[in-house]
This record gives sequence, C-alpha cells and structure tokens, in this order.
Amino acid sequence: MSQTFAHQRVSRICGDLFRVAGATENDAGLAAQMLVESSLMGHDSHGVMRVPEYLDFIDDGSLLPGASVTVENTGPTTAVVDCGYNFGAVGGARAIEVGMELAGRQQTACVITRRCNHVGRLGAYVQMAADAGLIAIATCNSPIYGHFVLPWGGRAGRLATNPIAYAVPSDGDPIVADFSTSVAPEGKIRYLRNQGRSVPPGWILDAAGQPTNDPHQFYGPPRGGILPLGGSVGHKGFALGLLVEILGSALAGIASTDAEVFGNGVCFIVIDPRAFAACDHFQQLVSETVAYMKSSPPLPGVDEVLVPGEIEFRTRRQRLADGIPIDEPTWQQIQRRAALGGVSLDAG
Amino acid sequence: MSQTFAHQRVSRICGDLFRVAGATENDAGLAAQMLVESSLMGHDSHGVMRVPEYLDFIDDGSLLPGASVTVENTGPTTAVVDCGYNFGAVGGARAIEVGMELAGRQQTACVITRRCNHVGRLGAYVQMAADAGLIAIATCNSPIYGHFVLPWGGRAGRLATNPIAYAVPSDGDPIVADFSTSVAPEGKIRYLRNQGRSVPPGWILDAAGQPTNDPHQFYGPPRGGILPLGGSVGHKGFALGLLVEILGSALAGIASTDAEVFGNGVCFIVIDPRAFAACDHFQQLVSETVAYMKSSPPLPGVDEVLVPGEIEFRTRRQRLADGIPIDEPTWQQIQRRAALGGVSLDAG
Repeated sequence: MSQTFAHQRVSRICGDLFRVAGATENDAGLAAQMLVESSLMGHDSHGVMRVPEYLDFIDDGSLLPGASVTVENTGPTTAVVDCGYNFGAVGGARAIEVGMELAGRQQTACVITRRCNHVGRLGAYVQMAADAGLIAIATCNSPIYGHFVLPWGGRAGRLATNPIAYAVPSDGDPIVADFSTSVAPEGKIRYLRNQGRSVPPGWILDAAGQPTNDPHQFYGPPRGGILPLGGSVGHKGFALGLLVEILGSALAGIASTDAEVFGNGVCFIVIDPRAFAACDHFQQLVSETVAYMKSSPPLPGVDEVLVPGEIEFRTRRQRLADGIPIDEPTWQQIQRRAALGGVSLDAG
Repeated sequence: MSQTFAHQRVSRICGDLFRVAGATENDAGLAAQMLVESSLMGHDSHGVMRVPEYLDFIDDGSLLPGASVTVENTGPTTAVVDCGYNFGAVGGARAIEVGMELAGRQQTACVITRRCNHVGRLGAYVQMAADAGLIAIATCNSPIYGHFVLPWGGRAGRLATNPIAYAVPSDGDPIVADFSTSVAPEGKIRYLRNQGRSVPPGWILDAAGQPTNDPHQFYGPPRGGILPLGGSVGHKGFALGLLVEILGSALAGIASTDAEVFGNGVCFIVIDPRAFAACDHFQQLVSETVAYMKSSPPLPGVDEVLVPGEIEFRTRRQRLADGIPIDEPTWQQIQRRAALGGVSLDAG
C-alpha cells in the first residue's frame, strides 16, 4: 500500500524536516535530494523510506547535523574523509568530489571515509564521477551491528550487505551499476516486510539456518541471515563482500568487530579513462559495447536486454512526471514528524 | 581419469616444451611455472591442462615466443603494457610489476594490457602484489570469439567469463580471490567435458536457450551460453562482467566486437594500504577480519568457514608433497608433443 507524491513536494518536506532537526540549509537540501533521487530512480529501499530513520538517528545522537566534514590528504592519490557523522550524503558527496579532483590530477585515486553515516544509494556518487567523464568504483561496508549476511558455509552473520557500485561514462546515459554482494540488500527485505509481502526463495535463512520466505523470521529475534550472492557458487558473493569489508574497515584502521563504530565505510576508486593513450574515443566505445549487449536476442518472455542503470533512468523519467511512491508506514511517520516539527505537508 | 606427477617434473617438461617451441629460457620457465602453480593451487582448469593449447597457439602464430614486452607510461599512475603476443604470463607478470612500482611511488595505480595472450590464473598476479604488502584488484576480458556468457535476459553470448581477482595481504597467507563473473568459467566446463562428466544445473543453456547439463550441448555447434553469476539476481553478475569487459576493451581503445583482436584484456588496480594514515596495522586488522569470518559456526554438513584462497593454499601444500593430477587427454597430448620435440619425459 503506497501513495504517489510529486518529487518537488517530497524534497521540500524532507528538506524542511532535516532543517528543523538542525541541518544547515545546504546539507538538508543535499540529504533530501539524495533520498528523493533514489526514489526517482526506483531504489525505494534507499529512498524516502529512510527519512524517518535519519530523524531517529538525529534523535539518538548518532547523526550530527551541521558537523564538519574534513579531508586529510594522505598521499598524491589518496585521502581520508572524516564525515563527522553528519548526513552520509554530505560526507559521501565530499569524498567523491575529492576522488574526482585527485584523479583529475593524477589519473587514479582512492578515497575512503571515516565516521560516515548511512551513505544511501552508492550509485549516486559514482554517477557524479561518470557525469564528469570518469570511471568510478565504490564499495560500502557497515559495522558489526549490521552483519546480517552469512559467510559462505556459515550460519552466523559476519558481513553487511556490502554493496558495490560503479559508473562508466558513455555517449548516452552512463552505465550505473549498484548492487549488494548478498542475494538481496537488507533494505529490500525491510521494504517487503513493510508491504506485508514474502521474500523470494533463496534469499534468507532463519536463525536455525533453515530457508524461509518470511521476512519476520529474518529480523527475529533471534536474527536469521541473508545468503551471499551466487546461489550454489555463493563463495563468489562472499569473496566480493569480504573485499568490501576490508576496504571499509581495515583500510580505515578499524577492526571488523569494533562495536563502537557505526555508519558506513565507503571506498571510492576513481580512474580517468583519458589517461590511457588509446582512449580518445572511450565514451564512444562504451556506447558501442552497450549497443552490442542490447543486440542479443532476448530470452522468451523478456522484452529486451537492459544494461545496468537503464531501467533506473527510465523509471526516473516516468517518476519525474508521475511522482514517487511512498509506502504507508513511511508516510505516517513523515506526517507525525511534520506535525511535531511544524513542517507543512502542503503540495505548494 | 588422471595421473599424478611431481610438480618439479611437470615444470621441467613444460619449460622444455616451450623452449623447443621458441621461448627464451626465462619466458619458458615463467610460463611453465605459472601453469604448474595453478595446478598446485588446485585450479586445474588454468593449469597444466593449458600446455597443449599454448603449443597450438604457437603453431598457429597467435602466440609469439620471444616477442618484446613494452611499457608505455601514460601518466603518473597509469601504464599500458603491450605484451606483443608473447606468453600471457610474461606480459601479465610485467604488467603487475609496473602496477606495483607505480603504486609504490604514488599509492594507487591502474595498468592495462594490450596484445596479451591467455594470462592464466589471474589470482597469481594479485598474489604477487599482496606478497609485497599491496592490495590488488584484477580484471580480465576476452574478445568476441570467447563471448560464451549471456547478458542478463539475453540468449546470445556477449561476454567472456570475465574473471575478477583480488588479493589482500594479512599476517598469514594473503586473501586471494579469483572467480569468473559467470556462474562458472569456461575452463571448468571444458575440464568436466574432458572428464566425461555432466555440468551442474543452472550453469549453461543450449543454443535454443534451454537449460542443459551436457557440456557438449554448450560447445555445439551451434553454441549455447553460460549464465551470468547470480541465479535469480544474475543482473549482478552481468554488471560485473560488463565492467570487466569495459576495463579490458574500451579502456584499451578496443571495440568489444573487434574480430581482429585476440587474447586477454587485463586491468590491474593496485592500492598501497600504507597510504592511509590509520593503517599502521593493516595486515593485523585483515587477519582479525579473517578470524572473525572463520568464527561463524558452520552450516550443517560444512566443516568450517573458509576465506578466499584458503583452500588453494592447503591444496598447494598437499600437492607439493603428493604431486599434481593431469587428466588423460592432456597427458596424451603432452606425450605426443614431447615425442615430436625430442623432450624427455623422465622423472629425473
């Protein structure tokens, strides 16, 4: 059950809610815009659904609106961005900007974050780099309290859903991939639970290690686990998730089991394709590769082959016109928060 | 059906076969050692099984033993290594060395290859970087004749099995992951065919797009396709495979459909963890992360949780002592080649 709202209205309401909660004008706008963009792109699990959660984080002191974001350049191509537990979107945007600057000068860069709150849709940041003609790869871990995902062969969670995102510029829309290294992100399971729906087979085990389709059996308590990407070759998804964990924790000098840490550990790797002598026409070649993928005849029942990001850019065009859906529990919480903070829900 | 041979004997025989075929002393030793190491690590599909194939490549002029490998530095952190169609192992080893040198100076690096023959076990190269305390990520594509893998939703192959490898140093054995972005690498299907065995469900479709377990139905003609990694979320495996394709082709200035190109397009990304201020004890933290993964109680029927590379290092210790298996068709071809070239098969 969900209603549909014009994105401008939702942006204004969310921005006002964040400002009332203590964010600066700029930070509130950026954080709201990042969530609304996720909803526009069809990633509802990383969209407006997160607004009440962010407000809860501010209430419990884990999100510090207005906190300074500082950049420590640790070498010619590397930096650590301390996000100060401001909105993850504020720290994440600063980190990819630093990566883009460094890669612009040195051709490659690696930037990591510390004290970064929920960074949201990872694809949004790599997309910023692709819009500037760069290739970017992003990884994002979460600390121990979010270790829902089972290591291959294990029955106790040891990793978060640890997404990987990348973006590559082309002559048209960039290729933008963004996916968890588990079978599914936790946010999608939460979304299905909020919708009162069951989870597809092969996604989760209950606390006893048995397969289940019931999202409540996953959340527990006692908590179950999400399987790593790959089905019968889930060791591959585990390997990817473990890399994301190391780039988000050990590289930042943080132990995987550190219970004091919270938020996301983000790593951006940025590469300037213009660095490679043969790449005068890189974006054209990428467009040709996209066309080649799409030239495959589809399987029966499939309309066409889609490259990563393609469905999102289509959804965005449709939702810009028709509005974004907000599920009923989320809308009720936004209404309650707006009433408490004196924020108008008007469409104007 | 396979026999077991001491690794030193196989190295000597393979090195002699490559020398007789025109390789320099150094290149022959390196190429032989890389294949034998793959067999020692249990990656038989990238091991000694490839020797007859490499000799065929030399015969047909696609592998040029003795060819020069040249390095073009294209920026402070980037290089293109032209492998001249010498053994892939010779070009690949040079490329990772260049990446390690650049990352040693600038903290991050990206090196790509051109005209690189079959590079073999990608994990071997990133392992070299991890042995020097560096993090390395490797990708490897193949040109159009090797496009066995279906794009998500398609029924005609558009990608090779496009492996990703990475290695991370720890206080013990490094973490070394190396896996195709398809459900399975083509070499494993060939290995099963050579063994007269069937392929597990969910790996391949026949030319009509129907599931099959028969490796001969995959090879055709007409050729079938290998499914991307991920089962019901195979769009994730497709996204990974597409990234590998772009880093191997467009970044090198090559079109995905270029039928003149052959061999592998390799990309190495190298990161020096010492660049990050907080990382004095990076390797110790990685070891702690490994211990944390392994502390998960195993699923019923599983002995223990293993991290990437762990089973390979165990296999290596066992095969160093007990020898490496070589399947019967491969051994017959090696015997035939040895007879033709006057190469001794003696154990001495």
